[in-house]
Amino acid sequence: MPAQNKSLNTKRHSLAHLLAMAVRRKHPDIKFGMGPVVENGFYYDFDFSKIGHSPSQDCLPKLEKAMRELMKKDIKFERQEIKAKEAKKIFAGQPFKLELINELEKTGEKILIYKSEDFIDLCAGPHVKSTEEINSNGFKLTKIAGAYWKGSEKNPMLTRIYGVAFETKKELDDYLKMMEEAEKRDHRKIGKDLELFAFDEDVGPGLPLWLPKGTIIINELEKLAKETELKSGYFEVRTPHIAKESMYLASGHLPYYKDAMFPPMEYEGTKYYLKAMNCPHHHKIFSSKIRSYKELPLRLAEYGTVYRHEKSGELFGLMRVRMLQMNDAHIYCSEEQFAEEFKKVNEMYLNYFKIFGIKKYIMRFSTHSSKKLGEKYVNEPKLWKKTEDMTRKILMETKIPYVEIPDEAAFYGPKIDVQVWSAIGREFTLATNQVDFAVPKRFNLKYIDSDGKEKTPLCIHRAPLGTHERFIGFLIEHFAGAFPLWLSPVQAAVIPVSEKYDKYGEKLLAEFKENNIRTELDAANETLGKRIRAAELRKIPYILIIGEKEVQNKTVNVRHYKRGKGDEIKIEELVEKITKEIKDKI
Amino acid sequence: MPAQNKSLNTKRHSLAHLLAMAVRRKHPDIKFGMGPVVENGFYYDFDFSKIGHSPSQDCLPKLEKAMRELMKKDIKFERQEIKAKEAKKIFAGQPFKLELINELEKTGEKILIYKSEDFIDLCAGPHVKSTEEINSNGFKLTKIAGAYWKGSEKNPMLTRIYGVAFETKKELDDYLKMMEEAEKRDHRKIGKDLELFAFDEDVGPGLPLWLPKGTIIINELEKLAKETELKSGYFEVRTPHIAKESMYLASGHLPYYKDAMFPPMEYEGTKYYLKAMNCPHHHKIFSSKIRSYKELPLRLAEYGTVYRHEKSGELFGLMRVRMLQMNDAHIYCSEEQFAEEFKKVNEMYLNYFKIFGIKKYIMRFSTHSSKKLGEKYVNEPKLWKKTEDMTRKILMETKIPYVEIPDEAAFYGPKIDVQVWSAIGREFTLATNQVDFAVPKRFNLKYIDSDGKEKTPLCIHRAPLGTHERFIGFLIEHFAGAFPLWLSPVQAAVIPVSEKYDKYGEKLLAEFKENNIRTELDAANETLGKRIRAAELRKIPYILIIGEKEVQNKTVNVRHYKRGKGDEIKIEELVEKITKEIKDKI
Repeated sequence: MPAQNKSLNTKRHSLAHLLAMAVRRKHPDIKFGMGPVVENGFYYDFDFSKIGHSPSQDCLPKLEKAMRELMKKDIKFERQEIKAKEAKKIFAGQPFKLELINELEKTGEKILIYKSEDFIDLCAGPHVKSTEEINSNGFKLTKIAGAYWKGSEKNPMLTRIYGVAFETKKELDDYLKMMEEAEKRDHRKIGKDLELFAFDEDVGPGLPLWLPKGTIIINELEKLAKETELKSGYFEVRTPHIAKESMYLASGHLPYYKDAMFPPMEYEGTKYYLKAMNCPHHHKIFSSKIRSYKELPLRLAEYGTVYRHEKSGELFGLMRVRMLQMNDAHIYCSEEQFAEEFKKVNEMYLNYFKIFGIKKYIMRFSTHSSKKLGEKYVNEPKLWKKTEDMTRKILMETKIPYVEIPDEAAFYGPKIDVQVWSAIGREFTLATNQVDFAVPKRFNLKYIDSDGKEKTPLCIHRAPLGTHERFIGFLIEHFAGAFPLWLSPVQAAVIPVSEKYDKYGEKLLAEFKENNIRTELDAANETLGKRIRAAELRKIPYILIIGEKEVQNKTVNVRHYKRGKGDEIKIEELVEKITKEIKDKI
Repeated sequence: MPAQNKSLNTKRHSLAHLLAMAVRRKHPDIKFGMGPVVENGFYYDFDFSKIGHSPSQDCLPKLEKAMRELMKKDIKFERQEIKAKEAKKIFAGQPFKLELINELEKTGEKILIYKSEDFIDLCAGPHVKSTEEINSNGFKLTKIAGAYWKGSEKNPMLTRIYGVAFETKKELDDYLKMMEEAEKRDHRKIGKDLELFAFDEDVGPGLPLWLPKGTIIINELEKLAKETELKSGYFEVRTPHIAKESMYLASGHLPYYKDAMFPPMEYEGTKYYLKAMNCPHHHKIFSSKIRSYKELPLRLAEYGTVYRHEKSGELFGLMRVRMLQMNDAHIYCSEEQFAEEFKKVNEMYLNYFKIFGIKKYIMRFSTHSSKKLGEKYVNEPKLWKKTEDMTRKILMETKIPYVEIPDEAAFYGPKIDVQVWSAIGREFTLATNQVDFAVPKRFNLKYIDSDGKEKTPLCIHRAPLGTHERFIGFLIEHFAGAFPLWLSPVQAAVIPVSEKYDKYGEKLLAEFKENNIRTELDAANETLGKRIRAAELRKIPYILIIGEKEVQNKTVNVRHYKRGKGDEIKIEELVEKITKEIKDKI
């Protein structure tokens, strides 16, 4: 999530309220779900079962119009705190609202409603005072989709109406244009077309099967991470995907992180959990022997898979999955070493941004709130100040653009979320860095310092490429599937103009493969045009046409899929050129 | 398990009986567990709690003596089938035997006893007729250890007395000598000394944490497998470690293989299982699109981890674990392609044997039994005959030593177990190949053949290096921890004779690392002798000593840990030499 524009989000929230009001005017009897703010807009869930059918996409302009009509009347939003009993009376016949009221009653939270003329909604707010604060040309209802109540398959399916909203019409139009482009670049569609990954009902939702061509991309990313980290003094480790309950009790992930974890497997009286993060396993490696200050900073890297239990309703292609492959690492260091280590991690990010052509990025630096020490945050005021100061200093020194967000740190230390923008200007959360000065103590991690005393290290959690799943999803959109040469599952396609040259094609194929260039031969069983078109659709960087002239000259005709027509080039020259381009990651 | 010598095993079984008889003579009141035959010998479990203490290792010679005394008397073994009621009377006060009797009663199996003078044991046999058939100098009681009844932590701990037995005293002595050497090469001890892996109580038994140096070995093995398989036309895939119950019901692993699987995780009303094998996931990749005969043979390889639930009592270092990393692959092919594919798999084995210096090996070719078609084996008599004939023919053609074992095939096709012997002559099961003509049908796998008709492919299951865990355990013993250069976690140690040369050492370290040689610098904070000794204990292939002369000449003094004293050699020459040796896997 980006740095939130609170005032804009308040307007979005009020637009959701207004949407519900417009629907209610038309269908006073239907049931209502929730209407929260989401990235760039809002939605509202409705249960249309009473009227027998859900509205179609065509209804959205009409609904928009109804909302604008209301806005003209300058609708007010009147906040009121009420008792549960009264709330239940108001929302009688609204089972979803009643469920929420019951929950609020149980936890003892305030029950708030917002009134706008005859429309009342259960809502914690905030809202604008009146619709005159909202630009009526800055919003648009975008789509209708099914969504389970509270995201769970076990609950009824509701109809969700989405809208987007901005301060100005220009911002809205820019956004819609970007989304149109994003749709063309939809990673799910391109992933299927290029045979990168597949889902299967029997394997399970959110659990991609990586097909051969997608696996090549993961392997290349992993190779890049390994090379980078080997040079930077990281040690690779491998740990099991499961561990006993006792480890997660020690780490504090149980019970605090339980909802994100798969339920346990119980055997021989012991509960085993599928790992949702690598840190506890790495802590165990740290503590597998007595450590000396000479070993610090100790950087343990793992290229593994963790499992998180996202709700079915929240799964989305590769962007929200239950299986997460990561280039994860934990850096154990002394307080004195922290600044240098943290700086190096940031430099690693900048290097990756360069490699992947990521031009726009920002770091969200989340700090603690001193009021919540001992509750939301470990009670170590000095360490908070120290690590936050150090982190801030490094961010300023390295001139990385950042925003500081108070009261959003992890419970064990300050946190940095890395936001990047794809080539078409869409924002993604790439990765998270965390400074951890609490969990090493819980795990009783120690090293013997130069003065002979036992000390507890700090731990930096980092995974600069985020998860492979999400990052590949991002890259598909970023490159519209036309990956740079070094990442391309197929780097070259050899296309003979007719059967006569298939044999020469096979020779070329062997030679290119020998030189570690991922090459395919599309022998002449279709027309030349069709085969060229197919290779272009598959976004293969080098399309190599061969005919009589090429056989004679021991050359190929290179047709670059961006440029179209080709150049004749000697085989060995081309192999050298491609090899260099792969090596240089051009 | 090796091809069993049935007659020798019968003798071993009778020795177990005799052991129990000897113990019983001394302690008539103690309780008895079971006394099966195991590899190279036998054991018997006793519950000594009644007499307050377990016998110590020192008692074994006395017990052996007592057994030999009995043998002199030419003890007979008299078989008798009895009713459950009678059995319960005989074994009153023997809770473990009663438990077994109840189980036999439940399943309706025969209840058999063997009588030797006043000693009666519940036992299915077979036994020798009389102890005069057994060489009384061919056996030895070897050790005493605790063991849970039936291998489960939930059951009481019994005392297990182990013995080994052979036809002759010479064979026994050779075996004991080999085991003495094996103990020095114990992979658990060497693994700890060389910091390859560790276990942690909170992670769980049978779940190794691979430390940086062990991870290097796994990575090298994986690299070898990937290079080999890429050249052989395999495609790499990655699949989740979990899947829904429905997939394992389709594959037949549930319920037939349930005991070896971890219990399910239940979420949103669905059961998810941790995968115990990769095949069903690969079948799902096969069926993710319509396949053409042109795509066959399709070879899908995965370098992943599966989880199997070995009982706590059966776990042993890396040899029996619950986490199994594999270079697994499944080859989908037509019947016509099978012979060629199977041959190539065998050739891959032979190539690996050469690389790892495995000189003795055999393939156990397990075939079906026509009497059990439709029960133990899928009812496809023609396919059984055909695939078995083809397999046998290839084994003969490639001149791989093999033995044929009837009635031990997998339920879906013939099976080959690859047995190898370590440098000290100990036998290991390395891997299993299976031909599968049943499961592809269950998964409805199809391809469109050249005649336009849908056909079901055969599937070859293969993992030539077995699991990384077991294979590394084997390699540790095989090489006594002194891995060949290309596998060594540390390939070179730079040791300056005094502090004065530490700087030159750092320069060398950087240069070697730059050339991808895994190098460590042991700077001068200990005596030279101690540091050389430490590097030798760590079995580092290249120990490079540097002093005044070496700095002057831009050389190092190479001390090979096998040869001892060294040769002076130019840096660039050495880098070239080492690089070549790594490449050639010398």
